[in-house]
Amino acid sequence: MTRLIDLSHTILHDMPVYPYDDPVKLYQDKYLEADGYNNFHLEMGMHSGTHIDTPMHLTDSEMYVSDISLDFFMGKGCLLDVRGESVIGFKEEYSNIVSERDIVLLYTNHSAVYGTEKYYIEHPVIDEKLADFFIQKQIKMLGLDLPSPDRHPFKIHQKLLSRNILILENLTNLSALLHAEDFEIMAFPLKIKADASAVRVAARVGQRQVI
Amino acid sequence: MTRLIDLSHTILHDMPVYPYDDPVKLYQDKYLEADGYNNFHLEMGMHSGTHIDTPMHLTDSEMYVSDISLDFFMGKGCLLDVRGESVIGFKEEYSNIVSERDIVLLYTNHSAVYGTEKYYIEHPVIDEKLADFFIQKQIKMLGLDLPSPDRHPFKIHQKLLSRNILILENLTNLSALLHAEDFEIMAFPLKIKADASAVRVAARVGQRQVI
Repeated sequence: MTRLIDLSHTILHDMPVYPYDDPVKLYQDKYLEADGYNNFHLEMGMHSGTHIDTPMHLTDSEMYVSDISLDFFMGKGCLLDVRGESVIGFKEEYSNIVSERDIVLLYTNHSAVYGTEKYYIEHPVIDEKLADFFIQKQIKMLGLDLPSPDRHPFKIHQKLLSRNILILENLTNLSALLHAEDFEIMAFPLKIKADASAVRVAARVGQRQVI
Repeated sequence: MTRLIDLSHTILHDMPVYPYDDPVKLYQDKYLEADGYNNFHLEMGMHSGTHIDTPMHLTDSEMYVSDISLDFFMGKGCLLDVRGESVIGFKEEYSNIVSERDIVLLYTNHSAVYGTEKYYIEHPVIDEKLADFFIQKQIKMLGLDLPSPDRHPFKIHQKLLSRNILILENLTNLSALLHAEDFEIMAFPLKIKADASAVRVAARVGQRQVI
């Protein structure tokens, strides 16, 4: 049997967002007793919470999220345990662990401070050599339990996105994958005409069930 | 090899919504040249576009979308071809086609008129006997290329949701599954504290690749 693990933060009114980004508004505007049904209204920037950055975020790409093939959002997952590294670098062993077209997740455990000021300010970053390695391996997507793989002027963002490697930010619960032998990531964004999208991220662990 | 098929409508500014629902607003508020990055802002009710209704929509359930197990949103798919039926009823053959815990999709081809006035007004509905059959089979989710399985006073909605059968509305492209021997549906909603959620819906068709 397989099991599904949720790697997403909850979308809430006034949830944490990147400094200077618009606040998230989520409120109930219809009520069962008064209106006959419940309904909620959401207002958010597409870089809030767990989300995917696509090339349009920082390049002159004209492809919206809705234009990108679904194949980019699902694939074999690969977790790298990089806890304790404030600048996350390349290690030789990664050459054997990471395969082409993988969805690579970096487990820093920085999600432990999600909801505090520290989360968006004092986060680890990745270095250029590691980014180059991901480009050489042609991974599909880089997932992080961080708000960003870098800081201003966002050279790592630009490097990855300009090579069509998607960036999946603000993951949580990556510890649940530490001892998983193999797993698959499903991170299908909304089919939206935007540069980024909020996303629910699920990992499927263990042998597949036969359908 | 497997392939992924997209069953979702695109989220656009001013896209079609259910009569009297708030309009969807999607606009760009940051521009690469002026701001150093592109960003989009979204405002929408959670019953716009392709979305999942959960019991809270029409019952006194206190479970938000974010509280529901991921297992409900993924599973073996089953397509019923019900084209031409304005009231979709039970047929004996469904007993052999539909299995417990399936995600059942009704293919009406009503999505062909998506974007016209007719879409939200003159759509097919399902009858109580068919709803009872889905309840008896304990399916996980009912998917429709319709805005709703019924009209006011929404008895079918209430019947299904009160028995914890989720309703996946406004699907498209179901014709692509007509000749699929077996397929799996992945319809993970946002992890949102709401009664419903926009969702990207993917069908995986054919033999699984080995991970």
